[in-house]
Amino acid sequence: MTDKKFDRAVLDQLLTKRFFFAPSFNIYGGVAGLYDYGPPGCALQANVLQLWRQHFVLEEDMLELDCSIMTPAEVLKTSGHVDKFTDWMCKDLKTGEIFRADHLVEGVLEARLEGDAEARRAEQGTAAAATAAPVAAKDAKDAKKKKAKKGKVTAVKLDDAVKEEYTSVLAQIDNYDGAGLTELIQRFNIKSPETGNDLSEPVEFNLMFESSIGPTGHLKGYLRPETAQGQFLNFKKLLEFNNERMPFASAQIGRSFRNEISPRAGLLRVREFTMAEIEHYVDPENKDHPRFAEVKDQKLRLLPSNVQLDGKTELLEISIGDAVEQKIVDNQTLGYFLVRVYLFLTRIGINPERLRFRQHLSNEMAHYACDCWDAEIHTSYGWIECVGCADRSAYDLTVHAARTKEKLVVREPLPEPRVSQQWQLEINKKVFGPTLKKAAKAVEEALTSLTECELETLSKRMADNGGKADIVATDGATYEVTDNMVTIQLATVTEHVREYTPNVIEPSFGIGRILYALMEHSYWTREGDEQRGVLSFPTVVAPTKCLVQPLSNHKSFTPFLGDIASRLRRLGISNTIDNSSVSVGRTYARNDELGTPFGITVDFQTVQDGTITLRERDSTKQIREKIEIIVEVLKDLVNERTTWADVMDKYPVFTQQELE
Amino acid sequence: MTDKKFDRAVLDQLLTKRFFFAPSFNIYGGVAGLYDYGPPGCALQANVLQLWRQHFVLEEDMLELDCSIMTPAEVLKTSGHVDKFTDWMCKDLKTGEIFRADHLVEGVLEARLEGDAEARRAEQGTAAAATAAPVAAKDAKDAKKKKAKKGKVTAVKLDDAVKEEYTSVLAQIDNYDGAGLTELIQRFNIKSPETGNDLSEPVEFNLMFESSIGPTGHLKGYLRPETAQGQFLNFKKLLEFNNERMPFASAQIGRSFRNEISPRAGLLRVREFTMAEIEHYVDPENKDHPRFAEVKDQKLRLLPSNVQLDGKTELLEISIGDAVEQKIVDNQTLGYFLVRVYLFLTRIGINPERLRFRQHLSNEMAHYACDCWDAEIHTSYGWIECVGCADRSAYDLTVHAARTKEKLVVREPLPEPRVSQQWQLEINKKVFGPTLKKAAKAVEEALTSLTECELETLSKRMADNGGKADIVATDGATYEVTDNMVTIQLATVTEHVREYTPNVIEPSFGIGRILYALMEHSYWTREGDEQRGVLSFPTVVAPTKCLVQPLSNHKSFTPFLGDIASRLRRLGISNTIDNSSVSVGRTYARNDELGTPFGITVDFQTVQDGTITLRERDSTKQIREKIEIIVEVLKDLVNERTTWADVMDKYPVFTQQELE
Repeated sequence: MTDKKFDRAVLDQLLTKRFFFAPSFNIYGGVAGLYDYGPPGCALQANVLQLWRQHFVLEEDMLELDCSIMTPAEVLKTSGHVDKFTDWMCKDLKTGEIFRADHLVEGVLEARLEGDAEARRAEQGTAAAATAAPVAAKDAKDAKKKKAKKGKVTAVKLDDAVKEEYTSVLAQIDNYDGAGLTELIQRFNIKSPETGNDLSEPVEFNLMFESSIGPTGHLKGYLRPETAQGQFLNFKKLLEFNNERMPFASAQIGRSFRNEISPRAGLLRVREFTMAEIEHYVDPENKDHPRFAEVKDQKLRLLPSNVQLDGKTELLEISIGDAVEQKIVDNQTLGYFLVRVYLFLTRIGINPERLRFRQHLSNEMAHYACDCWDAEIHTSYGWIECVGCADRSAYDLTVHAARTKEKLVVREPLPEPRVSQQWQLEINKKVFGPTLKKAAKAVEEALTSLTECELETLSKRMADNGGKADIVATDGATYEVTDNMVTIQLATVTEHVREYTPNVIEPSFGIGRILYALMEHSYWTREGDEQRGVLSFPTVVAPTKCLVQPLSNHKSFTPFLGDIASRLRRLGISNTIDNSSVSVGRTYARNDELGTPFGITVDFQTVQDGTITLRERDSTKQIREKIEIIVEVLKDLVNERTTWADVMDKYPVFTQQELE
Repeated sequence: MTDKKFDRAVLDQLLTKRFFFAPSFNIYGGVAGLYDYGPPGCALQANVLQLWRQHFVLEEDMLELDCSIMTPAEVLKTSGHVDKFTDWMCKDLKTGEIFRADHLVEGVLEARLEGDAEARRAEQGTAAAATAAPVAAKDAKDAKKKKAKKGKVTAVKLDDAVKEEYTSVLAQIDNYDGAGLTELIQRFNIKSPETGNDLSEPVEFNLMFESSIGPTGHLKGYLRPETAQGQFLNFKKLLEFNNERMPFASAQIGRSFRNEISPRAGLLRVREFTMAEIEHYVDPENKDHPRFAEVKDQKLRLLPSNVQLDGKTELLEISIGDAVEQKIVDNQTLGYFLVRVYLFLTRIGINPERLRFRQHLSNEMAHYACDCWDAEIHTSYGWIECVGCADRSAYDLTVHAARTKEKLVVREPLPEPRVSQQWQLEINKKVFGPTLKKAAKAVEEALTSLTECELETLSKRMADNGGKADIVATDGATYEVTDNMVTIQLATVTEHVREYTPNVIEPSFGIGRILYALMEHSYWTREGDEQRGVLSFPTVVAPTKCLVQPLSNHKSFTPFLGDIASRLRRLGISNTIDNSSVSVGRTYARNDELGTPFGITVDFQTVQDGTITLRERDSTKQIREKIEIIVEVLKDLVNERTTWADVMDKYPVFTQQELE
């Protein structure tokens, strides 16, 4: 299934009609970026999450948590979110309309490039199918930045130099901060796209929802932007729970919030969303994974950063074993998770042909990440980041430990004592204090925070400079330090315990995005009848497994419906009785749209001989057998112990009853 | 198991040590009323919710939703929460400490009564075991109002009249508003309990967390205080999804928030909590339930409001059929849910002897409820409201419909047209408009909003008053209406469709409270060794079903552990390998505390003959069989196809290996 003939509007209509989801507070006019899942969407989500729990938490014995959403400001200040989790916004000075500044610049420049291409085509008298020249490196990125409002495209030819400049700006649009965006807006004379009004200077907007905890109004809180922080804060208790053994992973499924400046693209960019996040804690000196051998032959389609930097988008199909060996993927643990993510996504029904793993370019990485691969799924919006697999290094545990003075480390007895040479600092208090007086504390803080490598450098600087060197203290001022105040030397150290801060490999799943992609990949229309949409969810995630319906409203059918439904329920097979007074054909069509894989019909023959028909959604083929047999067949189908093809081999196809 | 010897501190210590839950943001000092669930707490919760979904959603084919938490202020203004979802707080004028005013008054008066009792005992020279006289009606209520800070109890005898006055105030403490509480504080000279400082006048504090949606700062939002509103707003889509059939129910599991003034009592009164709510929509003229016959013989322990008003707490043990027939419980649907709630709670392990259903007194009811029964569970904190079963009547649907002009009604074709006499209003526009001029609209709005009964009254007033009457218009002013402007008369109306706003019966589950009560009910200590705590969760909700451990660290055991764990995993039986280097006895003790019902041990005999031991938590009895057999036995135990008693009958008890 490709999206060649795919019509998003038609699918959206189906999804709304069947209440997979709908804008929240719809009767109040709705709020952008907030959606409710209706019964089929909610069941689909529950099934996907259930499978996620099985596939990750149970399979790998992860430690699942359920943490608070409301988070005191101090925690998110430490994690960097208060300062860095921001976008730049600017305002139409007359209408007050607010734009995300980078999207705005991007949209306007793209519109101008399109206008240029149009003008050039007109000039050449050709109507070539190609529109604006694709910007390869940009095109390779995810579609979240797809233009919302870019204003009218007018056919105006640009100078070659201008065109080149626009293209170059677009290729690195993620690199501009507020000043940079201001400069672009001025240089390119960018106005509010629809009104042409002047724009305000971009200002920073924090994407977290703010609130206040308790009655005093003094304790500021934010709704968490990710579930990860709650996991990091519990690291010590988790390690203890795991009997101090490494490596291990924690996991959490839960709601997170981002107060987007201008949400769009349906379920893809929303203000409230369900995430499923894994934090795998690993020894920074050994990122091998004990189960890597089980996955090493699995091939994945990769888009490494160097390929993107060459302006290309060709995918590299390679086994994860080779990818790790060739250092394309940094380590076994990251590689292991890429495969596990692949297996999960394809199991729930994502088309493997429309799934790739793209490495982040350094300018895209979140403030905490040191390497990142996104599982991207192709949809009608382009390639969408659905699972981020980041190596957050020791960032989070380090900053929280520094702030709280709580040791967030692993202590491992060494098999034998380790003797090593280490650069060490000794402060000669008798001279240090009296010399520096009030500044002593600030200088001491600066010195004790130096790494070994920095100590070595400082020692060399002092040696080269007659035993003294300037140093910037924590009060911001510079002071001279001399070799009678401090001794810096290489000393022999014997350690019996190794103490380290673990690195964290984090696969982070955006459940809403995955569900939306799954709906697109599952959707098709019946040959020759494009009104008849089908959602071919795999049985394991289908919202309802079986429809139970009577051929008509005839009273004699009623007891059979209840009996069959309760048999199925006892086997844990979710089912719906549909006894609305419409034709069997219409009911089947409705359930095709709901993605229900199987349908049972009770008819007059049922009353005579206790047989019922079982219909499969994708083929619309049916069999007719005794109730007991059908129930058993269905049980095996739902539990994946048999396939519909096997069922077709074993039982005769039933065609007599005209249903379609 | 009673709580006779129950020591809450010891259980709390166990629950913290085993990380069932812990204060959120603990390394930052924590925030009152916010808790994280650790791995066993989280698994327990997931299992309870899974069972809830099976028991309610699947069994009754409810329409499950997953709605937004962030809610625009307008929605909660309409629902009444912005105005009425408040508590009264007052402040220590010197320290700034904030108290919930009713709790404060209650605590201080109770302390004085205790002091009085002490003084009287001392006077009589007796040291009777009884403390302050119990206040029956109050004692019957839930423990949420248990004193936090009541200040020192000093033995001061009170006048008999004062004592009586205190007792009477305490019995109706829920009835006081801000003015009432102010008056009490002055009259009884109530001061800040610990400092003795003066208190501020009580001010109203809204319990919803406030935030702002989007970048403009103009759209105020609140975190939802209940999941119900999202369900009501989707009523129209739900009814359509249900093929316009009544009755039906929607359901939602999710997080809700209440910014408590001073949270306490652990998991019982928190600021963020998981709820599971059902909204069952029913015809107000027929609240019978189609499946009532299935439950009518179930006996429940009820505490009706009239018993409480008599100052008594004796429970009435009665079948729900009789209770509904005798009008103790208002209708079948409410009765049906009380039984379903009872079955659910006892299935997950709540002790039926410590479970009762208490009817709300009229002064306790939430602003939207017209009748309410709480499932209360007895814990060391007293009787705790864990599931509220409220009849919210048509309140919510009516107010949202009025505010949004969206019809939230059911339209039912009548079996035959209904002819009736109805009071109707006709406006004579030619006279009405010109007479009232600018006020015409406001008067028309007032007239058209009159009910039939009010129209009849108005008609009489006009008839008695020479064909005219004063009426208050929607602009607040009074105008004269005459019988040449309007005609009010009894007309014959023929209806083919009946249109009505459904009533809503709402069972609302506080999952955290239920989990805490379950932990208390499941807890006991081994005979003769009070250090050895056990949590006897039913297998179906136990966080982990089976422990897999080696007898020692011997290398030959390792392959068996992995093999057994993967066999269990394939059967969906959650298990943990514990190969920490502690004795088997200590590992069993740890898993008793985690509530793991079964434990497998691999020992030297395993290596020789492939047999393993299986131990049951509560009895500590073991059997020894081949791995294949043990796995099958475990499968049947976990799926509740067999019991440990049956296993004991079938297989010989194994005693040789010394474990305890």
